[in-house]
Amino acid sequence: MPDGLTYRAAGVDLEAARRAKQAIRALVDATRDQQTLSEMGSFAGLYAVPDGFRQPVLVSSADGVGTKVRVAFLADRHDTIGRDLVNHCVNDILVQGARPLFFLDYLASGKLHEHVVADVVRGVAYGCKDNGCVLLGGETAEMPDSYPAGEYDLAGFIVGIAERNRILSGERIRAGHVLVALASDGLHTNGYSLARRILFDSLELAPSDPFPGAQRTVADVLLDPHRSYLAALWPLVEQGRVRGLAHITGGGLEGNLPRVLPAGLGAWIERSSWEIPPVFRVIADAGKVSDAEMFRVFNMGIGMVAILAIEDVDAVLAALRAAGETAWRVGEVVAGDGVELR
Amino acid sequence: MPDGLTYRAAGVDLEAARRAKQAIRALVDATRDQQTLSEMGSFAGLYAVPDGFRQPVLVSSADGVGTKVRVAFLADRHDTIGRDLVNHCVNDILVQGARPLFFLDYLASGKLHEHVVADVVRGVAYGCKDNGCVLLGGETAEMPDSYPAGEYDLAGFIVGIAERNRILSGERIRAGHVLVALASDGLHTNGYSLARRILFDSLELAPSDPFPGAQRTVADVLLDPHRSYLAALWPLVEQGRVRGLAHITGGGLEGNLPRVLPAGLGAWIERSSWEIPPVFRVIADAGKVSDAEMFRVFNMGIGMVAILAIEDVDAVLAALRAAGETAWRVGEVVAGDGVELR
Repeated sequence: MPDGLTYRAAGVDLEAARRAKQAIRALVDATRDQQTLSEMGSFAGLYAVPDGFRQPVLVSSADGVGTKVRVAFLADRHDTIGRDLVNHCVNDILVQGARPLFFLDYLASGKLHEHVVADVVRGVAYGCKDNGCVLLGGETAEMPDSYPAGEYDLAGFIVGIAERNRILSGERIRAGHVLVALASDGLHTNGYSLARRILFDSLELAPSDPFPGAQRTVADVLLDPHRSYLAALWPLVEQGRVRGLAHITGGGLEGNLPRVLPAGLGAWIERSSWEIPPVFRVIADAGKVSDAEMFRVFNMGIGMVAILAIEDVDAVLAALRAAGETAWRVGEVVAGDGVELR
Repeated sequence: MPDGLTYRAAGVDLEAARRAKQAIRALVDATRDQQTLSEMGSFAGLYAVPDGFRQPVLVSSADGVGTKVRVAFLADRHDTIGRDLVNHCVNDILVQGARPLFFLDYLASGKLHEHVVADVVRGVAYGCKDNGCVLLGGETAEMPDSYPAGEYDLAGFIVGIAERNRILSGERIRAGHVLVALASDGLHTNGYSLARRILFDSLELAPSDPFPGAQRTVADVLLDPHRSYLAALWPLVEQGRVRGLAHITGGGLEGNLPRVLPAGLGAWIERSSWEIPPVFRVIADAGKVSDAEMFRVFNMGIGMVAILAIEDVDAVLAALRAAGETAWRVGEVVAGDGVELR
């Protein structure tokens, strides 16, 4: 042991953490709005509850990006993963009928590399800005021994708001309502442990290799950011035209649709109504993954399902397409339970 | 490669995750209050903004427990770390003048061990219950390859509320105000990378060994939960008797006190006003850590500092002691900047 141990020698550099935070200050500040009352660096973030709600309800969710971070490590590209995280969280509160207010991130690494921290938080800040959401705070933790060199984990936490009587609770969903699918952008943030196993281990692809059958690299395809459906869906939610929303994450269509259907209602999904995107077909073929397993693990091309009364379908489809979404009728709500893929 | 890959073979067991969540359901439900509108398992948590505020401000913070988790791994004791996390977050919003509303946790591991998940979340739930805070949601992520067997990371997010004109902003702090220290319970959640290096590597102690000079084991001493000061301080904050609060975390007294002092004000701390607890003395001696470094890294026996007008000191000290705190006059606010230990 040297003369005297310091925290820095033990692996924690408080000064580097401070510098990394300064580097991202302008980005964080750019997400502020009129309700934001605190400065970066205070013990906690302060956010005034917006006026104009009769019975304001806070809608909150915590999430990570799973092992998609490991693709970011392999590709050494760290500025997209933050956007994944924010968009995932935004979608999770959108399905309850809420719009985002603010976001906090937790970034933990073994050794804090200032440029990686800056890239990750840059992605978070851009994601927040895109969704009209304030990056109110966060924690950057340096944890020697807990993460290997160059690795980190990232979690996020969102708070949104909704008028109590406008919450999407499922109570306005009836048998005969129509399911409309909104296309995903690739894998979003689910199924990466299986996808990595197949693409990197079985097919022995490198991140810079062309993705089989595609014009893009493996890294490009796998790092496609999780899509936010806020801009396209929020006007329709506000108009009361959306009866329910299901964010298709871990568990797939069969795992997530039932979470928003009231007791006594199930759904069928028409498999022939869309073409499974190539990324999923490549994974299924190379890994000999059964169809059932693919649908349990991946979104299979559908990132969000909207539940609509039949009289709203045409107008909603037109509005979604005008907003840049790929959207189509994919199935129907029926008496019963569970989700039938047919 | 076997016949067909599954998500489970790739290391992710969605069923085990579901069982782990069921095991903790009753604990989570026990933290619910009248404002809680959502059930466990929904996409997001719903929490009605409490009535009775003229200008309600949300106060939010994200945190982890640092490498204190590694002591939990070594000791194979997982039910205290959640309490650390909640109490840390509660203190961080308390210093802004807020009381907690709800909490969300993020627990990531390589392989989900149901009993470990249950123990960790049990600690979180008890911590929430103790602080009158709802455990509104959370994410339990299984990330093969990202965490070694038996290891995990834990982060938490808190949302509290304060009346806008009652926020502790520092503007009521003046030169001549008195600093009152509240004793910590050991290391709380800071300095564990240095403490582990010295105790486990240099002194080669095992978690079950007696802590040098103490009647308790190394694990017992190091896993002492981070103390929550909410119960003792909240009545005094509500009465307007507290001008400012500083939570003594990473960076120590010198790093944290200035965060709550307005520009143009500094402070002195009287070193002889308290005895440094044995745990810090053992670490300093064994690691030959300089006094200055010890004070930058550890709380050194002070978990919270309250800033009071001189006429409030006696009553506040009496109230804190009646609430079970060890509290004493430790210094004074002065013109200038920085914190002088003298």
